[in-house]
Amino acid sequence: MAVIVQKYGGTSVANAARIKYVAGRILRERKKGNDVVVVVSAMGDMTDDLITLAEQITKRPSDRELDMLLSTGEQVSVALLAMAIQEQGGKALSFTGAQIGIVTDPSHTKARILDIDTTRLRQALREKNVVVVAGFQGKTRTGEITTLGRGGSDLTAVALAKALKARCCEIYTDVDGVYTADPRVVPAAQKINTISYDEILEMASLGAKVMHNRSIEVGKKFNVPIYVRNSRHFKEGTLITKETKAMEEVTVRGVALTEDEAKITFFRVPDRPGIAARLFKTLADAKVNIDMIIQNKTETNTTDISFTVYKNELQKALDVVRRAAKELKAGHIDCDENIAKVSIVGVGMRSHSGIASKMFGALARKKINIDMISTSEIKISCVVDGKKGRLAAQTIHKEFGLDKKITRE
Amino acid sequence: MAVIVQKYGGTSVANAARIKYVAGRILRERKKGNDVVVVVSAMGDMTDDLITLAEQITKRPSDRELDMLLSTGEQVSVALLAMAIQEQGGKALSFTGAQIGIVTDPSHTKARILDIDTTRLRQALREKNVVVVAGFQGKTRTGEITTLGRGGSDLTAVALAKALKARCCEIYTDVDGVYTADPRVVPAAQKINTISYDEILEMASLGAKVMHNRSIEVGKKFNVPIYVRNSRHFKEGTLITKETKAMEEVTVRGVALTEDEAKITFFRVPDRPGIAARLFKTLADAKVNIDMIIQNKTETNTTDISFTVYKNELQKALDVVRRAAKELKAGHIDCDENIAKVSIVGVGMRSHSGIASKMFGALARKKINIDMISTSEIKISCVVDGKKGRLAAQTIHKEFGLDKKITRE
Repeated sequence: MAVIVQKYGGTSVANAARIKYVAGRILRERKKGNDVVVVVSAMGDMTDDLITLAEQITKRPSDRELDMLLSTGEQVSVALLAMAIQEQGGKALSFTGAQIGIVTDPSHTKARILDIDTTRLRQALREKNVVVVAGFQGKTRTGEITTLGRGGSDLTAVALAKALKARCCEIYTDVDGVYTADPRVVPAAQKINTISYDEILEMASLGAKVMHNRSIEVGKKFNVPIYVRNSRHFKEGTLITKETKAMEEVTVRGVALTEDEAKITFFRVPDRPGIAARLFKTLADAKVNIDMIIQNKTETNTTDISFTVYKNELQKALDVVRRAAKELKAGHIDCDENIAKVSIVGVGMRSHSGIASKMFGALARKKINIDMISTSEIKISCVVDGKKGRLAAQTIHKEFGLDKKITRE
Repeated sequence: MAVIVQKYGGTSVANAARIKYVAGRILRERKKGNDVVVVVSAMGDMTDDLITLAEQITKRPSDRELDMLLSTGEQVSVALLAMAIQEQGGKALSFTGAQIGIVTDPSHTKARILDIDTTRLRQALREKNVVVVAGFQGKTRTGEITTLGRGGSDLTAVALAKALKARCCEIYTDVDGVYTADPRVVPAAQKINTISYDEILEMASLGAKVMHNRSIEVGKKFNVPIYVRNSRHFKEGTLITKETKAMEEVTVRGVALTEDEAKITFFRVPDRPGIAARLFKTLADAKVNIDMIIQNKTETNTTDISFTVYKNELQKALDVVRRAAKELKAGHIDCDENIAKVSIVGVGMRSHSGIASKMFGALARKKINIDMISTSEIKISCVVDGKKGRLAAQTIHKEFGLDKKITRE
């Protein structure tokens, strides 16, 4: 008998009707003869409501008390879901993260899972229960309640799947799976049937967020097959799994467009060792996140440095950079908010040469100028004029044959 | 350094403003140099809201899952109150019942406290924290979350006061204390400064509910002084404590009026041993609660039996009684919904004779006929015409000198 771990997000359990529907889905899986462990998030807006309450008390709640407060959200969900399963004739027991043995470090609001003691969980499964676990939370070795931070419920599910040697971890959400591109940008985008951990990690970092990277990384480390599926119907979703030979035959898995970055250029910086290090340390100290960095030597013993930051951090970055420019005796600073970054991702790139030139050629034919280029082993990103971002994404999507309906790989 | 346990009910922490106010009160006590342990109920309507959620899922939630659900209410309160204390510059830590070592039996929704492990609590106090504990809840020896049922938060407070050998347990509520009578019935009612456990137990059972009897009984058993006080101001409340010699000097502590009972009379029941036993067993099997029972032999080898039941159970009682009447070959049955029960309570009655005749005499002077009489060691109850209940209560209240302002005993 296999163990299946299912995780339902906040929208999937937003009200009584949705909870009853999810209970029915769970029992459907149970009737197939599998042991089912369900991880649940807080109902819809509940976490936000609790945060609002805290804000009425204090502008700076302590992390420990915030964890005490927020962990109640998932506890409400698991109790209600267990009731709904029982109401439909199933056996179910709900547990908090602390009860089910999820042991974390003491970093309140962003704790890391150290260990999972599955004794109680296995006992509940042996007694034929659907086990309903509060996501996003655990306890320290001294019994303090902790929460896991962003993407915490997904992480609970993947970690439980690993600890129980589950057949797979199903992440139920309100999208059908992972797509070759954001369908709002590229209408011809297709759902991907199978994708590797590395590919989805790159795509997530490019803004195609279905799951938080932390959970994918745990899945990758312990080789937990993760299904992303829509909780509203029974269609196949996207399987995230380890890289296979077949995956490499598809050179480009997806195309991503990011429009939330801005470019800063630092002209005629003195070309001496350590200058870049000092500049970026200053930015890091100010907690400015940097994405791409390009440096090019000019003819006059100086260098131009360009980098991209998130638009909501642009002003902070400019303040830091202007101060640094004086200190470093650099030339002037330029800033461009009207940029877009278009990227392709695929493990097949490693073994296929010519992917970059094919991408650049396609952009050139549409007269889209490339401003910056950055590459990783399985990714190529180009910064282009912001107004041409969507066209660039659509062009590349078509160029690599992603518009075609994907059949089962 | 003394330990003080304070308990704040749902109305005292109903919103952010109230929580901040309570935090201020707690710090005021802390500044006197005492260690403070605070027990909190769920905010205002939160428990009702959670029950409504459960009812949307199922008409018969399992007790275990109901406990998982309802225990979140107090957890929210303790986190917010700890935040509010911290915001005002105090040190505070919140704990669930399970965390703080309140061990109960496994009777979900009505668990009994078996033991309290105060290790963690004492450590938190040593570290100069106000310790904020979720009332109404605990855990079983196997780690299941339980709730204590009605009056559970008061019970948590009294039990903690006992376990910590606290100087006293302060129960904060929205009334000023215990009164000689319900001021809505007897406008001249006076606040009582000191009352014995036994007296308040009798008064509570007569409908003058300030605290649930369970908590008083635990207080009595372990001799925990309990202060009932109003959380909205700093006036002295009522101290519930063990009986003292001085208390016996006051013969009657209070007067109570109950208008929610009805009388059933069973005429001409055969006067044989075991008849009453059979009748009341039938009623008990049907879960009808009986209050007073009076039996009087008539002249004809039969007996009349009268008893009172709560009006909301009258129909159920009559159904049972009519079936029993046939079986027992009894005469006819009469029922009177228009009755009132007026009672006096006081430990001084034990050593003072003539209290009963004084009560009956006062009623007679006002031409109030007495229908039934029942007595206990520290209580006398009379059933009178329902329309004369209030007048009876006021008359007796005056007769025993309770209208006079009570000075500190």
